[in-house]
Amino acid sequence: MKIAILGHGTVGAGVTKLLSNPTKQPVNQLTVKSIWVRPEKVQLEARYTDDYQQILHDPEIEAVVEALGGEEPAATMIREALEHQKHVVTANNVVIALHLAEFQQLAQQQGVHLYFESSVGGGIPWIANLERVLRIDTVNEVQGIWNGTSNFILDEMTESGAPFDVVLSEAQRLGYAEADPSADIDGDDIENKLCISAALAYNADLRPGPQTLKVGIRNVTAADIHYFKQQQLLLKLMGKSVCQKGQVSLIIEPTLVPKTAAEASVRANQNQVRLHEATIGDLSLVGQGAGQLPTAHALVQDLLDIELAHGHQQQDLSSLLQVNQNLQTSDYVLRTHADVRQDLVGYDVERDADYYWIKQISAAAAHQLARQIKLRDQRVLLAAVA
Amino acid sequence: MKIAILGHGTVGAGVTKLLSNPTKQPVNQLTVKSIWVRPEKVQLEARYTDDYQQILHDPEIEAVVEALGGEEPAATMIREALEHQKHVVTANNVVIALHLAEFQQLAQQQGVHLYFESSVGGGIPWIANLERVLRIDTVNEVQGIWNGTSNFILDEMTESGAPFDVVLSEAQRLGYAEADPSADIDGDDIENKLCISAALAYNADLRPGPQTLKVGIRNVTAADIHYFKQQQLLLKLMGKSVCQKGQVSLIIEPTLVPKTAAEASVRANQNQVRLHEATIGDLSLVGQGAGQLPTAHALVQDLLDIELAHGHQQQDLSSLLQVNQNLQTSDYVLRTHADVRQDLVGYDVERDADYYWIKQISAAAAHQLARQIKLRDQRVLLAAVA
Repeated sequence: MKIAILGHGTVGAGVTKLLSNPTKQPVNQLTVKSIWVRPEKVQLEARYTDDYQQILHDPEIEAVVEALGGEEPAATMIREALEHQKHVVTANNVVIALHLAEFQQLAQQQGVHLYFESSVGGGIPWIANLERVLRIDTVNEVQGIWNGTSNFILDEMTESGAPFDVVLSEAQRLGYAEADPSADIDGDDIENKLCISAALAYNADLRPGPQTLKVGIRNVTAADIHYFKQQQLLLKLMGKSVCQKGQVSLIIEPTLVPKTAAEASVRANQNQVRLHEATIGDLSLVGQGAGQLPTAHALVQDLLDIELAHGHQQQDLSSLLQVNQNLQTSDYVLRTHADVRQDLVGYDVERDADYYWIKQISAAAAHQLARQIKLRDQRVLLAAVA
Repeated sequence: MKIAILGHGTVGAGVTKLLSNPTKQPVNQLTVKSIWVRPEKVQLEARYTDDYQQILHDPEIEAVVEALGGEEPAATMIREALEHQKHVVTANNVVIALHLAEFQQLAQQQGVHLYFESSVGGGIPWIANLERVLRIDTVNEVQGIWNGTSNFILDEMTESGAPFDVVLSEAQRLGYAEADPSADIDGDDIENKLCISAALAYNADLRPGPQTLKVGIRNVTAADIHYFKQQQLLLKLMGKSVCQKGQVSLIIEPTLVPKTAAEASVRANQNQVRLHEATIGDLSLVGQGAGQLPTAHALVQDLLDIELAHGHQQQDLSSLLQVNQNLQTSDYVLRTHADVRQDLVGYDVERDADYYWIKQISAAAAHQLARQIKLRDQRVLLAAVA
């Protein structure tokens, strides 16, 4: 099968690398014919072009690998590829989180496939395994450490005791964090991955937006990490969702896990994803959630599924689920210097200096508390206790 | 697709359970037509028969689920099913570890499939993911906590401080261990799973036998567990294999892991499996490695792959690999009351009462030491330090 790649940054170049002289069957059946790049780069390589129409009208090109990132022009170019009956594979969770239902319908109409394994969990075959489990029974819970950058920062803070800003700069220097790190540290990237996973798991069109609860790790201090560590707890930024009786929760929040928990052993920029299904119980996968070759590997796996006609189990996204963030209840901790005695009336709270340990409170109530306290203390920290 | 099940014990009945009135697509396309049981049971259910010829000659039955366990009559019945152009799926790692190459060739000749997802890792989709990774690149390492019974025993000893025999009896009472527990606690079950995994990973006909290094957990005492725990180490029975330059190691041994390691978080009767491949690095999966519904789930997944024509990546098993147990080197600990000063000459050893901590020694040398010391101390313990 001949393919075109849109964009030749880290991810696009990773695909080219995996497909240059592969010796193994069946990956040696894939060939990169064209690579769409910006006009100023066209002369750098023979396969480079800035003419997308040429790719769209090339009957030899059966599949397009979208490796641009971000919503536009990726969304428009994916739409055009599908309209021209090209299969599309993408690593872009922004565009899939927003347009999955639309693209899926369009692909079906055009008789082609839209696959996005690498958009969630990078090199971890998460989508493939989630879809596979769904062939037999329903999944009622998905959860993950879905962002390598935030995990790297928290892990490094835990190891070194260094403050957030220092570790973030280090992550940027190492290429683990971008110049604008907000998508990673504020939970937007996890929100996309959680919504895509929940949409597939529960067959509903669940998109990022105000109905999710989202708290990132910007307010985590070295003192917080030290304090929790003394209590044998480690902090992880996690995405969590459960589905019960037509209701769904979608939560992204710092979460304290015992240092002997499986989540605690997810180090550096690794990812962990977990699902719960009735017949197999819990299944979790741990691996590289980002990076050039893991992401390219997952894109090539999608291409191979197309080449080998291993059609993915298409999930109908028409279930109407009500978002209910009260579905999940746990202990939470708030760290703030504000006077919160009024806010916490009616809750079972243990205070330890600036740390307020609140027993069994719904995620909705905990996040609401954090929002109202934030008006008085911008640096308030909220964390769930797993 | 109509199927027959051979044997209706725990696993066979699990398949019947999953296929009775499934509502989901595509699992609702599978129907159990016949169940082969012993003559004295035939009258218990309409679908029961003791006439295998009838199943073999029933043109409606396209696939046979072998749920008998053990080598015979399973091997003969699988062979006959393949010869009659029935697809075969099996949960039986004894028969697959011994006959994989033969059955694979026979299935290919007959134009049918032989799948065995559930034979390794139970409900964990290990074979599917291993074969999927192999579509792109080679795997050079497989490793796992592959036996739920031994993991349950070690976990329970660690939690309760109780001796081996007491915990084993408890495991037998709970149905986690069989009346004859030797396959689980002496490492034979792991040896089968390791050989199957290594055979697929490295494309070689690797079978259980004298060329593997194998030490089980019979000699683990409550005092050992207590001593290691004081050093923040937990004991796990693991299977490990690496492949380098035409050489392969195949090792089953108790292994000490730091209590914060991923392996340490594999609790009770869970399994963990891990592979290493060049483009995605480490990938590990954790889930239920045994039990009625997880095992049945994996059998049904294999049936669905047949139904949906998702042919597995067939691994050619013709590579000639030399078994070399010197490939893996690590620290080891020996616990013995025998006088071992002569045995340990030339090694870098730290002694702590009956515990001898040996630095950087090959697996071959460590297992050889344990074998020679065993002649003087039947209860000697050997464990690798991860």
